[in-house]
Parts: sequence; structure tokens; C-alpha cells
Amino acid sequence: MSHNFSIIGKNIPRQDGKAKVMGAAQFADDLKLPGMLYGKILRSPVPHARIKNIDTSKAEKLLGVKLVITGEDTPKINFGNWRLVPESMDEYPLAIDKVRFIGDEVAAVAAIDKDIAEEAISLIEVEYEELPAIYSVDDARAEGAIKIHDNVENNTSLSRTIHYGDVDKAFAEADLVLEDTFEVHAVSHAYMEPCSCLAKTDLDGRITIWTSTQTPYYVQVLLAQTLGMRENDIRVIKPFVGGGFGGKMELRKWEFCAAFMSKLTGKPVKFTLTRDEELMAGRRRHAMKMHSKIAFRKDGTILGKEFTSFLDGGAYNSMGPTAAFLCGNFGGFLYRFPSYKYNGFHVYTNKPPAGAMRGFGAPQALFVTETQMNMAAEQLGIDPIDLRLKNAMEAGDEIPGVTKIHSCGFKECLEKVREATEWDKKRKQYSEEKSNKGIGIGCYSFISGGAFNWFNTQYPFTAVEVRVFDDGTAHLLTMASDIGQGCDTVLRQILAEELGIKVEDIRLTAADTAVTPQADLGTWGSRVTFMAGNAIINACSKIKEQLFKVLSLKLNANVIHDMECKNGRVYLKNRPDKGVEFKEAVRLAQKYNRGEPLVAYGSYTPRGHGLVTPAYSFGAQVAEVTIDKETGIVKVDKVITAHDCGTPINPIAVEGQLEGSIQMGLGYATSEQFVMKDGKTLNTTFLDYKVPTALDMPENEHYTVEVYDPYGPYGAKEAGEGLVSPTAPAIADAISCAANVRFKDLPITAEKVLKALKKL
Amino acid sequence: MSHNFSIIGKNIPRQDGKAKVMGAAQFADDLKLPGMLYGKILRSPVPHARIKNIDTSKAEKLLGVKLVITGEDTPKINFGNWRLVPESMDEYPLAIDKVRFIGDEVAAVAAIDKDIAEEAISLIEVEYEELPAIYSVDDARAEGAIKIHDNVENNTSLSRTIHYGDVDKAFAEADLVLEDTFEVHAVSHAYMEPCSCLAKTDLDGRITIWTSTQTPYYVQVLLAQTLGMRENDIRVIKPFVGGGFGGKMELRKWEFCAAFMSKLTGKPVKFTLTRDEELMAGRRRHAMKMHSKIAFRKDGTILGKEFTSFLDGGAYNSMGPTAAFLCGNFGGFLYRFPSYKYNGFHVYTNKPPAGAMRGFGAPQALFVTETQMNMAAEQLGIDPIDLRLKNAMEAGDEIPGVTKIHSCGFKECLEKVREATEWDKKRKQYSEEKSNKGIGIGCYSFISGGAFNWFNTQYPFTAVEVRVFDDGTAHLLTMASDIGQGCDTVLRQILAEELGIKVEDIRLTAADTAVTPQADLGTWGSRVTFMAGNAIINACSKIKEQLFKVLSLKLNANVIHDMECKNGRVYLKNRPDKGVEFKEAVRLAQKYNRGEPLVAYGSYTPRGHGLVTPAYSFGAQVAEVTIDKETGIVKVDKVITAHDCGTPINPIAVEGQLEGSIQMGLGYATSEQFVMKDGKTLNTTFLDYKVPTALDMPENEHYTVEVYDPYGPYGAKEAGEGLVSPTAPAIADAISCAANVRFKDLPITAEKVLKALKKL
Repeated sequence: MSHNFSIIGKNIPRQDGKAKVMGAAQFADDLKLPGMLYGKILRSPVPHARIKNIDTSKAEKLLGVKLVITGEDTPKINFGNWRLVPESMDEYPLAIDKVRFIGDEVAAVAAIDKDIAEEAISLIEVEYEELPAIYSVDDARAEGAIKIHDNVENNTSLSRTIHYGDVDKAFAEADLVLEDTFEVHAVSHAYMEPCSCLAKTDLDGRITIWTSTQTPYYVQVLLAQTLGMRENDIRVIKPFVGGGFGGKMELRKWEFCAAFMSKLTGKPVKFTLTRDEELMAGRRRHAMKMHSKIAFRKDGTILGKEFTSFLDGGAYNSMGPTAAFLCGNFGGFLYRFPSYKYNGFHVYTNKPPAGAMRGFGAPQALFVTETQMNMAAEQLGIDPIDLRLKNAMEAGDEIPGVTKIHSCGFKECLEKVREATEWDKKRKQYSEEKSNKGIGIGCYSFISGGAFNWFNTQYPFTAVEVRVFDDGTAHLLTMASDIGQGCDTVLRQILAEELGIKVEDIRLTAADTAVTPQADLGTWGSRVTFMAGNAIINACSKIKEQLFKVLSLKLNANVIHDMECKNGRVYLKNRPDKGVEFKEAVRLAQKYNRGEPLVAYGSYTPRGHGLVTPAYSFGAQVAEVTIDKETGIVKVDKVITAHDCGTPINPIAVEGQLEGSIQMGLGYATSEQFVMKDGKTLNTTFLDYKVPTALDMPENEHYTVEVYDPYGPYGAKEAGEGLVSPTAPAIADAISCAANVRFKDLPITAEKVLKALKKL
Repeated sequence: MSHNFSIIGKNIPRQDGKAKVMGAAQFADDLKLPGMLYGKILRSPVPHARIKNIDTSKAEKLLGVKLVITGEDTPKINFGNWRLVPESMDEYPLAIDKVRFIGDEVAAVAAIDKDIAEEAISLIEVEYEELPAIYSVDDARAEGAIKIHDNVENNTSLSRTIHYGDVDKAFAEADLVLEDTFEVHAVSHAYMEPCSCLAKTDLDGRITIWTSTQTPYYVQVLLAQTLGMRENDIRVIKPFVGGGFGGKMELRKWEFCAAFMSKLTGKPVKFTLTRDEELMAGRRRHAMKMHSKIAFRKDGTILGKEFTSFLDGGAYNSMGPTAAFLCGNFGGFLYRFPSYKYNGFHVYTNKPPAGAMRGFGAPQALFVTETQMNMAAEQLGIDPIDLRLKNAMEAGDEIPGVTKIHSCGFKECLEKVREATEWDKKRKQYSEEKSNKGIGIGCYSFISGGAFNWFNTQYPFTAVEVRVFDDGTAHLLTMASDIGQGCDTVLRQILAEELGIKVEDIRLTAADTAVTPQADLGTWGSRVTFMAGNAIINACSKIKEQLFKVLSLKLNANVIHDMECKNGRVYLKNRPDKGVEFKEAVRLAQKYNRGEPLVAYGSYTPRGHGLVTPAYSFGAQVAEVTIDKETGIVKVDKVITAHDCGTPINPIAVEGQLEGSIQMGLGYATSEQFVMKDGKTLNTTFLDYKVPTALDMPENEHYTVEVYDPYGPYGAKEAGEGLVSPTAPAIADAISCAANVRFKDLPITAEKVLKALKKL
């Protein structure tokens, strides 16, 4: 397929780059308002306890303290993102009666400065009656275990099942059955900007909150809910945001506290978390314990799979329901599984709640799938890439009633990495040598946004307003939220391409719930480019219809002519000389409408795409490693990726996502972990919590295969999350190739490697 | 006519009241941005000169000075409000080659603090070649007078003629002809907030300016023009504004300087004028010299009028063209003039430019008309009110091709003040006694916005966007500008009435050119309530259509039913029990549209209303005075007003306008004047420039006559400006009644009174 794009597919510099590089970008904590108070949260020091009494009197008496609140002072309204299932909303803005993990929010202080706020926190006296604490999914589900939430049996707050085909038959007919247990750990989003928000209450009672969020709309709705206010009396503005990765897509308790305390004090109130708080109590990727049983014919054909996953949700549900579903979805994806049975269980423990995190169920499920594929290849004597090619999904594949694949470049990706890495030669060589070098493979697929309305929004999933002017400029208004991933640039590109103008011609107003059109579900599930992009195309079709009408009139054009907007002009497609400048066309349309400005609303809701997503990305990644057999340190030398993200709207932005994904995948696979003792996290600084740095990064080589998705904007699909999944299984496979040790748990630390090599 | 309004006609407290009283309202000068520079303007110390040389080197070397600019540094693009007549645009952002009045803007400095900026200004060396200066319209039009602008003959930049009927015949047939010359002076708007603006240039080159303006749209357009930029790369935001009265409805040179200097320095730049600058160089009401010849039959019937006006425009055109036109319009208005001939001349002098000011040509013209009516009454032996009743305009009156009166309560106003003041008795008594007490009358009419597109906007004259939500709230977006007159409250009232919700349910976003719909011409000519009000009604009709459709569907309603929105409900008009809550109706409409938010755009452009306005206000005012014959001081004891502003949307807001108008009318009549010597204003502080204070205010009694204008929103017309006109002629008439001295020039100072009484 050949496309003659002007701006799509070009390396457009990030529109926010200058502001960030020059220090002009204002993040939430940079904002200051006159009379502003500083908030601080008192967190539980115990993992599980009843609150017997809270005495705030000493804190209140401290000079400079303006307000101290506890759960009892709040309207005590529960909340959660899964509004479609109200009983899943298991959190309160501040603890009521019980605390459930070390870090649980108990009280909040607003004071005239940060030090006073901290001092005040230390003066609040809480009497706890400690309860037995639970730290593992097995303990949580054990008979007689204490209930972390009163009404939840087995501490299992929800289960998800996916089932199709005859699994029993598959295992009965199989030539090879693998059955393994995998354990993956929790990791932090480690976004550069700790959470921060600033709320102010206007004299008319309306609240404005600037907050580091991926989802202004959710914050608006849930803040209104917990405050007992009307949605539209709350205004949420997203300033610059320094990363989210899924960790900033819920109402956070400090957002409630800032808003509520600004309402009570009449002063603006700001909360900014420390890194210590983030690592001690912040959301994280779900640790999971997974059992997987998979059946093959000896020619490599997959016959079926039975997959069970226990999600360690920590103290609250958070985004656990979605993680449980997506884990199951991706456990049965990527390859054709004629039969599949998934059971996912979301289990409470007395640990910090896990939530959404880049990949969202897929990294866990795909570590299992990809590791078992590599194990099966070994046992069947089939090359891992050949085994994948035999089973790989293709466009047109369908899980009836659930999902359908409209575009798929998976096989091309597999062929591409095979060729680019000299796979056949190296795999053979390293496997035979069993020296210190290995090469391994991992693959992935991911969603381009979710098609299931778990938030129960009453609005389209995304909406934009496009205004065009006779000076050749356009204004794009959207609630879509750039949190560092670059959608402010990509959405401009799509608008510019649609209208045939330049990226610089576009003013963007984004992520302000009182100004931008209702609504947008936010930045998660790699949905923004796909959905907001389609909404822009929808709006532009209305704009262009008007431009084409006046051009038809002006040129007295034959009705058979197609027209297009390109290179700053509007013209007959087959007679490019016949046309007018874009701004002149706008002027004419405005004149035709006797002065009315040319404005269009566009929206997108993924109807007709089943329950999962309208489009899937695919890809394959090969890692080459060197193991230092004396220290156990695995050095990842090179990562080679071929991926199908549909049309890359902005290739350098895609590259950025890939590099960031490799960095995160590397940390997940080898270095990051929460070291905990009795529910307490011991490594709450970046000195101790080991995120890979630029110096740790492997050489990176990548290829985008040419795929055009029929439903994506300009054929685009996701590129933001899927790529985080293949790195861990690829590294694990490369280690196996090099050293004949197969890891089924993460992270693969030097210590574990040494132990496996029996050197420790 | 009886109307059952819920909110219209009620005393609704000003929505901005709390913020202002509590000091929370932020005016332009309250705004601060990081790295902000302070701007200061160098003004000409001479009234008329060629600029030979400007040496800015010393200023530039001063530590803390970041930029010094002169006219030569700018793009040298001329500008002016009368874009429809490009040759009228006679100003440049900074002087090019010549200065034309003391205060003319010559250069500007931006420095890190105010004191440094002032110091730098004093270090700029300008070499002037002085030219003869002209201070009166007579001198300006005299043969051989030097030309203030090279291309303008007789220093008369434009003339306006209105002519209909046979004036010569009227004078030939008249029983009484009065012929008089009147002179009225310039006065200051004396708004409480001196002009201030803060501009910042984004890294992408777009400019945002917060400015104390009545007309964000004009500033946007003219700033773009003078900077050579595109309109929509400029964003103008109006913060709280402390009054304008016509004095803040143009692009001001410091707005250009702030924007231009922020572009060059990359820093935000703020300019705030001092009161000294405001009174020395600021816009003002036009001083005029007027000749009026008027013909009566002995029964009091007016036969015709010949009226000539010379406007002392000062150094530039500013809003002179409109003033010249409106002066002529109101010179032939209020009464039926079967024949009328007007010639207005806008004359340049070497004084600060006059511009728009409350009443805008009417106070001058009506001082003439009303004084001559009172003189004629005396000479014809007819009571002044009877004389007026005989000639008063009525609904249905028309000046063909020019204007038509659709509603008119003038006669009712005359009858009302006659009754309320015991006019017949007091007038007779005081006239006979010739003691120190007098009673006099003045009347007025004024426009409800202009119907002539002199700014040459390409947009509707006003536009709004209304968004309604299923939580029962609404959001009104409008470029209309509350500058203290209270339109933010009145527009909410209109929206609330239309939708049957409460004022508190409405969020308002106003006067931000990048967010609110294109466009609104701003606050002048008493246009906002009428025009933006009609735009709101237009938008709401679209909203209600959708609500009524879903209600019809839900109730399976008989097609004959009318429906309405009232008291938070939407229901069948004749079966009020059959309906749903407003928010439920919105929910249904949104559901019907599968989630699309319910939003409507509405606009208003006064088509089909001739060249002047769609609606006229009318009124009569009686002043009672006591003259201290020893000091010459005229004490105004009481002012009684009856006026027709159509339906008063918010009676206390109308009352506020009336009180402010009396205060301004009183100052115009008796105390305010610019004392000038050789082009220099000597009284540039509020100690010396005598604005009446609260203590100077007379007792005030007022009546609104019940008139419902067919084109006004809910029958409303203007109440913001017309009332400033009757006070001066009423006071002059009362003085004549008390002391038999008739003043045909303003102000009527104690000194003049003593002289007239031959005591000085």
C-alpha cells in the first residue's frame, strides 16, 4: 500500500521539547498561587490494623497549621475507576476504621509551609489495633485467612474467566504438554515527576485542580463523586506531566485532600509526593503467580492452553480488574489457540496496591507464553522462530464475540528479526557453544485502546473540536493528555495532514475539563493516537465538506471531482492547479455562512470492535546477552526489534517509545524489585531501587514493518506499551541459550544466575 | 404586557462582587510571571515636532535594562479601529518621524524593575525640531495652518453629513428660530484602574496578552496587524477590569510594546500606566464646538434643524469617526425633526486624542438639543415638558434607510418625571421666585449597540457557546467583556431564564480570544446585553429543541404541545406535571445522541436594523439645584429620572448604571475639566482633576417605565450610557430656572456662574 503523506510518517520534533529543555515547562509542583498552603499526608506505619483513635489536637495547635483532616471529616464516599461495577470501588479518600498497608492514607495536614506540614504530621497520634498481615496470594487465599476487606471471601475480590474450545481434548491429543508455574514481581512506574497537585476553590464554590494526571476526566468525575459535588463544578487542568506509565490514571487521595482542604480553608492547597512516598506506597505493576499448561502437536501446532493467574493486588482493587482481564486476553493471544481456558483471580494482600502499568497484564502473560514457546521449541527440536511462524496470528483471525484482528504484521516481524540478527547462525552457534553468549527471542501484541466501558462514561470515548481560521491557522481542542509520550505532537500531525497545513499552524488546547470538549478517557492502554486521531479525522471531514462545497461553487466544478486539502491548498484532486489557498477556502466558507466561524466537533467511540480493542500491534524482539559467570551479571549487548505499529505517525516518537520500553523491560527483567520486610518497603530511593540508566542501555536496532490498519488513523496502531513485554522473555531465553538455565521468575538478578549456575 | 420571568427582572447580586470585595479579583497589574520585565514609555514633552534623532545608548547601558525600542525598531505598521476606512488608521505603535501632542509615545524600555525602567526612560535623548502647535478647532481649520498630518487638508480628517427633509423651507416657515453656538469640553473616563497589560511570548512564537481592555477581539486583530503576525497566533485574555467607559476599546501602544518586547526578549513584559499618564495623555471625551439652528412653529412643533459640529480630535482619529456620526445622529433624534441637516468635522489639534467615551457623541449633541428645547419653551411660553411631549418620538417612527424605532417609552418618562417631581408647581414657583433654587430638565436617547460594521469584522457581531450537562449545570463561553458593568451576571441571568436553571448553575468562561467563540466586538455602545443576550437566546433555542424532542419521545406527547424549561424542569407548557428534571432531559438528549455532549453555538448580528442600532433607550431627567450666589457653587440637590431601558434584566445593575451616570454627568456639567497650557495638561492627579465623589452625589430617585422591546433579549435595551447625557442640560436648565442665566458651554464652574451673575 502506498501513501503520499505530507506530515504523517515524518520525524516531527516534539512540540514540547523546547519548553522542557529550556526549563519553561511548568509541572504541577512549579505552580504557585497567592496564599497557597502545603499539604502532607500521614500514612499508616503498620500493614494491617483497626484505627482505634486519632488525636489531631497537637497538630492543630502547631503554629502555621491551617487544617488537619481524617477520614471522619470527609463525606466518606467510596470510589474507584471501575464505575461499571460499583462494588469494586473499595477506596475512601482517607482511611475509615482500618488501614490495610504500610503507607495507607490516614490523615492530612495543610500548613503555611512544607516543614510545618511535616512537623504537624508527626504530631498526629493514631492508636492502632494491629491485625495479622498477609503478604502473598497463597496466604491470602488460604483457609482461615483474615479478611482484609470485610465482605470479600478468600480475599479474592474478583475473578475473570475466558474459555473457548475444548481444552481437555487438546491435552488428551497433545504430543507435548508443558506445565509450569511462573512468578513475576511488582515494579514501579518510576516516572520522573512524583505526583503533585494544586487545588483552589473559587468564591462561588467551584474547584479547579491542576494535577499530574493521565486522566483529567476521571479525576473530575471521581473528585465530584467523593466531594458530593457536581461534575461540572470541578475543573481539572493537566499541566506538563513528567511521565505516568499507568500510575497516574486514578483519583489519588491527595487530589481529594487538596480539593477538600482548599474548600474548607478557602486557600489553594498543594500536595507533592516525595520519591520515598512514591516507592513506599505508590501504585505498581501487579506481581503475579501464574500456572500455565500448554499442548502441542509434535509438528509444533498449538492445540490448547490452560492458564491461571493470581494477581497480587495489594490492599485495594485499583485497576486490578482490567489487569486480570488483559492478562487473560494476552495469555491466549499472539498465537492461534484453538482452545483456551483462563482463570484470573485478583487477590488482596497487605501491600501497596498494584494498578495499571505499561503493558497492563501483557508483560506478565507474555513472559509465560514466550518462555513456554521457547521451552517447547527446545523440546520439539523446532527453531523458536519457526515454531512461532507456525502458530502466529494473522489478519482476519477472530475470537468470536470477543475480538478480531484487522491487521497483523507478526510474521513479517519474525522474519525480519531472523534476518537482521543472523538468528539461525547465532542461535545454533551459541546454543552449541554454551559459552557465555546467548541469543533469545520474545514477542508481543498489544491493544490500541480499550473497547470496553469499565469507567461507565456517558460521553464518547474521545472528542475534539477543530476550529479553522482565514489566517491559515487551526485550533485543536482536546481533553487528550500528553504525559510525556508526545501525543500533543502526533495529534497536531494528524490534524495538519487532514487539512493540508503545517504543524506550526496549529494551536493546541488540551486536557482542561472546563474548556476542551467532553470527554476523553485519558492516556492509558495506548489509546490516544488511535482514538483522538480518529476523532480529529471525524471533525476534519466536517470541516472539509464545507471547504469543498465553497470550492465547488467558486470553480463551478463538475460534480464528479474529488477534492483535497494539501500543501496549504484546497483543490481538485485530478486538477491540482484548480484550487485556492487553504485560508482562502476558509474565508469563503465563513463568508458563505455569513461570518459564522468554521468549527467542527468530532468524536470516536470504538463501536463494532468487540470487547477488547479496535486494533492490535505485534512484534518480535531478539536480545543478545553476555553472562559473566563469575559475578552472575547478565549484560544485554544488543536488542533487535521488528514491530508492527501500523503506520508510524511520527517515527522518532515511536523510536522513543521503543527505547523507553527496552529500558523498562530491562529493569523488569534484571534489576528492579521492591525489597520488602513485614510489609515495609526497604528500598524507597533511586539509589536502592535499581532503574536502568542510560549507561545500562544495550545497543538498539529496530525495524518497523509496513502495515496499514484499516481502522487506525492513517493506518496507525499502538506503539506505547506493547514493546515493554518482549524484553524479559527474550533476555531469559538468551540466558537459557548461553547457559542452559531457564528462569521462570523475575527479576533475573546476578544472585539468581549464580545460584542457577550452582556457583552460589 | 405581562411576563412571568423567573430570573429576569430580579435583583441578582453581582457574580463578581465577592471576588472584588474580598480582594481576590486579579486585575492586569496583579498578574506576575517568572522573569517578568517592567515596561515604561517615553512620551513627547513637546506638542508638535519632528524627531531629528533618538539616542538610546545611555539607556541601553543602564544595568537591568533589557531592551529599548523606538518607532524605527518596530515593523512600522499603522493601525486604528476604523478598519473599514483604511486611510483613517493614522497611528503607529511608536512615533515615526513626528510627535503630535505632549504625551505622544516615542520610545519604550523593558527592565528588571520599575525604577530602572523609569531611570532608563530619562536617559533616552531625543532631538526634536519643534513645530507650531494648534490647540483649537478654529486654529486648526484656519487658512495657512500647519498640517498636523501631512496628507490631511485643513487638519480635518473626515466629515460626516446627515441630511433629509427641506431645512431651508423649515426656517422660511418657522415662527421661531434659535441659532446658538455651544462649546463642550473634554473629560476623562477616570476609570479606577489605570491601563495595564502583561504579554508573554511562548517558545513557539505565539503571544498571550492579559490586558485591561473592553475589546479583546480588537486587541487581537490589531496586535496581529501591527506585529505582522497572524490573528490566531495572538491570544488576548481580559482579566478583571476596573472600568473602561470607552477608554479601553482600542489597541493601545503599550499593548503593542509589551507584546513586541516580550517577543524580542523572550520574557514576559508588563506595562502599567500611572494616573499622571492617564490624565496627561489618555483618551477622553471629544471637546466640540457646535452650531445649532432650530425652527419651531409657534405651537411648539419642530420644523427643522441645522446642526454643525467640530470635534476636537486631538492628534489622532481614534474613535472620532463614530463620535462625529453619533453626534449627528443624536442631534436629530429624540424629537421628530421633519428636516435635518448635519455636518460633522473631525479636526486634528496638538492635544491628546479624544476617543470613545460613555454616551459617545450623545452628551454633546443632547446638551445642544436639550438646552435649545428649554430655551424655545421659554420663548414660546410653553412648558418644557409639554414642548417635548408635542415633538417626542414614538415607536414606529423611522428615518428611512437609516433607522427605525421599535419601542419607545419617552412620553411615559416625561409624564413620570412631571408627576414625580411636582414639576408644574416647582418649575412655576422657582421660575417666578428667581431665588436660589431651580428645577430643570434634560432628556436622552441612546443606542443598544451599533449596527454598522466599522471595524470590518469577518465574524458575527457576537457569539456564544452554551454547553449543558446532565448534572444540571451549564457552561457559557463568550468573548463578551465584563469591565465592571456587570454583564457576567446579566448574561448568566439570560441563560438561566432560557434554560430554567439557576444563575449559580452556570460556569462562565469569558473574554479569552483563544477559547471563547469567535467573536464579540466588545463592550461599547451599550451593546453587550442586547447582542450577547440575543446570541444566548439563539444558542438556547437549539439546546431546547433537542430537549423538547426527547421529551416528546419520552412522553409520547401529542404534537400540538408547547414545551418549556423552567424551575429546573422541562415540561409541557399546559400540563406542567408532565415533564422531567432539566438534568434528566439533558441526560436523555445526550443518550439519544449516543453520548455526544449537548452543545450549541449561537450568534447575533444586527441585520435588518438600518445603520445605527437595533433599539433605542429613552428617558427624562429632572435636576433640582441650589445656587450659592455668593460663591457661585451650584449644589445639585436631587436628580429624578424616568427611563425606558426596555425590560431591566437586573434592576440593581441598572440602578448602578444610573448612579454612575449621574456621577459622570455631574462631573461633566460642573467640576471636571482638563486645565491646559501650551498643550500641557496641568491637572494630572485626582487631587486637581475634580471627579465628583460619593459625598458630592445628589439625592437620586428613579423610575423605570414598562417597555418591552420586540428585538431585545426579553425586551431589554441599553442602560449603560444614555443616562450620562441628560444631567448636564438638566442642571444648566435648573440654573437658568433659578438664576436666569443660560449656559451654552461646559463645565458650569462656580467661577462662570459668578461671572454670569455679574458678581465677578
